[in-house]
Parts: sequence; structure tokens; C-alpha cells
Amino acid sequence: MLYAPKEEIYSRIDRLRQLMEDASLDGAFFHYKVDYYYLSGTMQDALLFVPADDEPVLFVKREVSRAKRESPIERIVSIRSIKEIIDHIKPMKKIGLQLDVIPYNDVIKFKEIIGNVDLINCSPLTRELRKVKSPFELTLINRAAAIQKMVYEFVPKVLEEGMTEIELGGILEAYAKALGHEGLLRVRSLNYEAYTWHILSGRTGSIVSQSDSPMGGLGLSPAFPVGASMKKIKRNEPILIDFGICYHGYQADQTRMFAIGSMPKLFSDGYEACREIHYRVLDKALEGLASRELFEYSKKIADKLGYGDYYLGYKPHKVRFLAHGIGIELSELPFIAATHDYQINNGAVFAIEPKMVFPKQGSCGIENTVHIENGRYKILTDTDERIIIV
Amino acid sequence: MLYAPKEEIYSRIDRLRQLMEDASLDGAFFHYKVDYYYLSGTMQDALLFVPADDEPVLFVKREVSRAKRESPIERIVSIRSIKEIIDHIKPMKKIGLQLDVIPYNDVIKFKEIIGNVDLINCSPLTRELRKVKSPFELTLINRAAAIQKMVYEFVPKVLEEGMTEIELGGILEAYAKALGHEGLLRVRSLNYEAYTWHILSGRTGSIVSQSDSPMGGLGLSPAFPVGASMKKIKRNEPILIDFGICYHGYQADQTRMFAIGSMPKLFSDGYEACREIHYRVLDKALEGLASRELFEYSKKIADKLGYGDYYLGYKPHKVRFLAHGIGIELSELPFIAATHDYQINNGAVFAIEPKMVFPKQGSCGIENTVHIENGRYKILTDTDERIIIV
Repeated sequence: MLYAPKEEIYSRIDRLRQLMEDASLDGAFFHYKVDYYYLSGTMQDALLFVPADDEPVLFVKREVSRAKRESPIERIVSIRSIKEIIDHIKPMKKIGLQLDVIPYNDVIKFKEIIGNVDLINCSPLTRELRKVKSPFELTLINRAAAIQKMVYEFVPKVLEEGMTEIELGGILEAYAKALGHEGLLRVRSLNYEAYTWHILSGRTGSIVSQSDSPMGGLGLSPAFPVGASMKKIKRNEPILIDFGICYHGYQADQTRMFAIGSMPKLFSDGYEACREIHYRVLDKALEGLASRELFEYSKKIADKLGYGDYYLGYKPHKVRFLAHGIGIELSELPFIAATHDYQINNGAVFAIEPKMVFPKQGSCGIENTVHIENGRYKILTDTDERIIIV
Repeated sequence: MLYAPKEEIYSRIDRLRQLMEDASLDGAFFHYKVDYYYLSGTMQDALLFVPADDEPVLFVKREVSRAKRESPIERIVSIRSIKEIIDHIKPMKKIGLQLDVIPYNDVIKFKEIIGNVDLINCSPLTRELRKVKSPFELTLINRAAAIQKMVYEFVPKVLEEGMTEIELGGILEAYAKALGHEGLLRVRSLNYEAYTWHILSGRTGSIVSQSDSPMGGLGLSPAFPVGASMKKIKRNEPILIDFGICYHGYQADQTRMFAIGSMPKLFSDGYEACREIHYRVLDKALEGLASRELFEYSKKIADKLGYGDYYLGYKPHKVRFLAHGIGIELSELPFIAATHDYQINNGAVFAIEPKMVFPKQGSCGIENTVHIENGRYKILTDTDERIIIV
């Protein structure tokens, strides 16, 4: 088990403090475990407080000895109730709180404890920090990608005609977990859950659902309406496998195409168009085009290749992003999207996923997790990109 | 795939309306998908509005045709932005909103749309409704329990010395998913995730983590510090398998004990004590004792049997509940807990889980999902309760 080194954690906190200073914050509280994991190294039941001008304090409610083992934060305080934190903090005027994720009632209760202060949403600060991945984080993402490669190479060994999508998904998950995959892909959203078993075959690849994705799949029930279903996998239909892997909380995202017997030309051609878009957009990203320009550029290529109606979904279900940053959440900065207006930053890790959806027929596409460094891109998910025919 | 019948959904809404009247609400909004699934039958990207004196309206943002297929709600309105709802609602004074789960910023945005109204947390109303399970809901829970029974009976076929906990967990999950298990167990909490692969062997059964459970396990990393780990399963140690199953969103929860070779006497004796507590508390529940009295009663039995120090965890990590209601969330009403003061209601479904944790050695326990009806209890998770030795 890997623990975040002390220099790693304190350098993140130092960078956070600079952003806090820019926002004139006297202190910031991190209740949401994804962010206090990033800033402390532990996901024990805790609350992290970062004052502008003093040492950070990690308040831990349950298993403090485990928090101390996992986190290099020096001031770790055991509490039984969140009310006790008031003994450890000085009066402040303007504080950061994660107002985008903490439930309303919890913020109200917290206000009663902390008193009359200005509350600012501090989540944009950690999202900003997390745009740049450190070498330590890249180690974890690379490990996720390595597990993913093994999973994709395992597919031809187990894929059989007549098995259900979920049956294949379960087998792949079991294989991945034995290698260290953690099963959940965290998303910063009340209602959005990310499953790892996005296995869509033939027509289910054209089914849309509640997720912000060109295709959602049929899923297992109205309560789990996304991803693999009880549909049996047939010969000569496209099988799209979009299977996220999580290692020590860090995700890698990837999509490859498979078929039993043969891949219909509609989908093999569509897949090549996706690959072309994928690589041409990456080249342009290095030239410094802004996010929304990259997105528009990708649409133009799709149009020219004759895929305008199918690219990133069909109307009215087209999605407006081509790539999403990835790390400890499935949707981090930066994005390549219609409404994002910035250059792709150095140190970014994102998943780029051009896909085509053909109504009532199915879908195809490619996805890779990519790292940008010093004017180059590196494909972290370096699984063979050829369509695999079993 | 099963869809909730129209009478089912509208009878839930009728019962909700009575509670809304008691709370003098002019209307209530349900943003959180678990609750609008309960009240509408769909988990598509939606928002359910229930006015006090008019038909409910389901606003759907993305896949409206799918929402219409899944939900029997008559008024389903397609929207592109949540702002559009204002065209479909009358002025109101006092409205319900799910203030316990909706993020603070989302409530503020919603206030801007809805105008100057009194906001009341309406989540206690749906939690109250969900205390009583309908025959339709029982069908789904029974199906989850049937899958679970098959999974537990599958364990002896795959359990082998030297496999890791997570390896076994993955195999069981794959098996369960092929039968319809949905993988996630939803919990009403920002930071709490429920995994299905709680497989703890020997010493990992005594490891505590961030979860409100007598034992948490080692997990896979600081980012997933609960449940099965990379620890290899050995001969002659207790193997506790607490493996929740979810079918159409409805959960069944169960714990059984296994061993390879033999079960050490400490744990087989402890297990029998747990069974005794389990059944004696159920008998008392039928007599009408209040929740906290049942909890205290269970502690007294544990003390008398000599397990006071180990029952429901060891100090300072003892938990203060013996049973949790279960349905579309892992923690529903009613509870058998130190701080809950009500009788167990007719129609309740809950998981009762007496467990013993022996520091640095491991844990044992039993858990069943139980239905209370007309003065009787029925064990829904009717897997053989004997310790299984492989």
C-alpha cells in the first residue's frame, strides 16, 4: 500500500495557500473526502482545516491511529464531535468551504459552529491545483493504466458469443480487482455514479441514459440504467468496452473495440475516423489552441469525414465535450469542451474520447488517458489500438 | 426489467401528500435520485415536483422517452435547463426541498429560480414513507436475497487457501452480477460509500476504518480503506463475508462465516453468541420494546455471555446500532440503536447484525435481512446459518 510522501502533501498545501492568498481567505475547510485525501493522504473520517498563516490541522473522528499512519500531516487531532474544532481555530473573517458538494443542512450546522464569517466556495482552488499532476500522482495513474492494459488484453481470452454484457463486465472487474482495481470511479455530483462496467454491444451502444455521455447503455434496471445489461453478446456486432480503472483512488479511462467473428464496416470505418480525430486534436492541443477551439476543430474533422450526425452522439443527445481531465475524480480540469475557454495546461492528464453513435445500431470509439508534458503528449493507456476480433 | 406499477407509484405519492399536509407544505421537490426513483420509478436525469393540490410533475433533462417508459407519472415534461420549471408551478409559500443531501450551492441556485419561499427539509417525509415496504418492494428485496443465497452457496466452490480477500470478492461479485446484482449499495451520505466486497479474514476482521461498522477491514489503499484487501486467506482463520446485494435498487444484507480447515473456537463460540442475540432481540422486537431498549437488551445478553468487551466492536470503536432499516438505501428507518426511541413498525425491513470483534485477532457475526409483518418476523435472507468449513 502506497502512502503519499510528506513533501508531496506539504507542497500541495503550499500551492493551495497561494491560491487562498489570492482569494483573501483566512482559512479553508475540506469536508469532502476526495479533496482531503488529495491534501492529507487519508480518507479516514476527517475534516481538514488549512489556515492561511499556520499549520494545517486534520480533525479525525473515528480511526485516528490509521489516519496518522496514512497522512503525513503533523497536527492530527482526534475529535468525537465536529463542535470540538472550535477549540483549535482562531477567529476568522473569510473562510473557504466546499459549497459545491456539502449538503445545505451541513453548511448551516457548520455556520453555527464557526460563527459569523463570510463563506466562499473553495472547491475551485483544489480543482485548479489538481489540473497539474505530480510525478507521484502519475505513478498511480500509470499503475491504473497498467492494470487496464492487462484487463483489455484479457478480453479475448474470455469473450464468448451468448454471454451477457454484465457477465463479461463482472469477469473483467474480478480480474481487475485481483490486480488492485478499486471498483468505484468517483464523480463530483449528487446524482451521477460512474460504473466500471461500460460494456455495450450492438444496439445497446446506441441507447442514451441519464449520464452525460454520447451513449449510456441499457443497464440492469431503472435504478441502474447505465452500462452493461442482460443483453447477450452476438457475433458480428460492435462491442465497445469503456472500462475505467482506479488505483489508490487514481483513475485511468480507456475505450477499445472488439467483435466476435467480424466488425461491421460501419463501425470499423467509424472507429478509424475516431482515431483520426483523436490524434489530430492532440496535435492541435500542443499548438496551443483553446479548449473550445479544439472541440470545434474536432467537429469539423467529423463533418468532413461524413460523421457529423453521429459524432459524440446523435441529436438531441449529442454531448458537448470530447475530453475530460481525470485523476481522483472522473471529471477534473482540463476539459476539451464547447464551453471551456483555456489552453490545455502543461502537466494535465485527461481522457480524450471521440465516439460515434449510430441510432438503433450501436456505437464505436476510442479513448485514451493522455499526459501533457513540455510540449509533448504521452498516451498513458498504451494498449494496442487495433480492433480485436475474436 | 421490472417497472414500478402505476398504482404503486401513485399510492406512494398519496401517502407523501398526507405527510406534506401535516407539515403544511404547498409543494415538495425531489432532486436526489434515490427519492425520485421511489416516487416516480425512474432514475433518469430528473426533478420531481409534488404540489399539495395538483398532479405531480416529473421534469426530465436528458432522455425523456426513457423516463416515460420507466415512470408511470402522467405529467412528464422535458426541460433543457432547470430554470424552465418556473413555467409549470404556481406561487407557493412553504416548500419542501431535500436539504440533507442537496449541495449548498445548488439550494442557493434553486432559491433564485423559485423565489422567496420558506424552505423545509422534506427528506424526513420520504424516509418515513419508506419505513413500510410494499409487496412490490418486497418482491425486489426477495429477489436480492435469492441472488445473495446463491452467492453464499457459491463460496465453498471457489474459496481456496492463498487467494486474496479481494480476489474472492471479485469472483463473488462477478457471479452475483451475472444474476442481476447491481454492484453499488447506496448510502445517504457525502463521504460514505458502501462496497459489496466486505470479505475479512483473520486479523483484517479486527481492523477499524472510517465506516460506521464494528470492523472496516484493510481495504485496498488509503483511498479505499474499507473491505477486502490484498491479504491472503489462510487455513484455520475466521472468514467473515458481509456481502450486500442490490436488485433494481433494492438491497439485501447478510453475513455468514466460513473457514478453510477449521474455525477457531473463539470465533465459533462468538458466532453462536451472535446468533443467540440475533434471535432473542427479534423475539423482543415483536413484544413491542422500543429501539433503544432492544439495543440495551442485546448488550445485556452479550455481557451475560461474556462478550461485553467484543460485542459490536471494542473500545473506543464500538458502534451504537445493532440493526439498520434497508431498502433503496443501506441506512433506512427503522434502526435498533442506542439513540432511537420508537417501536419497530409493522412492514419494516431491516438488517440485524450482531458481531464480535477480537482485537488483533478477527471478527465473527451473523446478519440477516428481516421483514416484520402482523406480529411475526420473517428472515428474508434464508441462507443456511451454519458455519461453512471448506
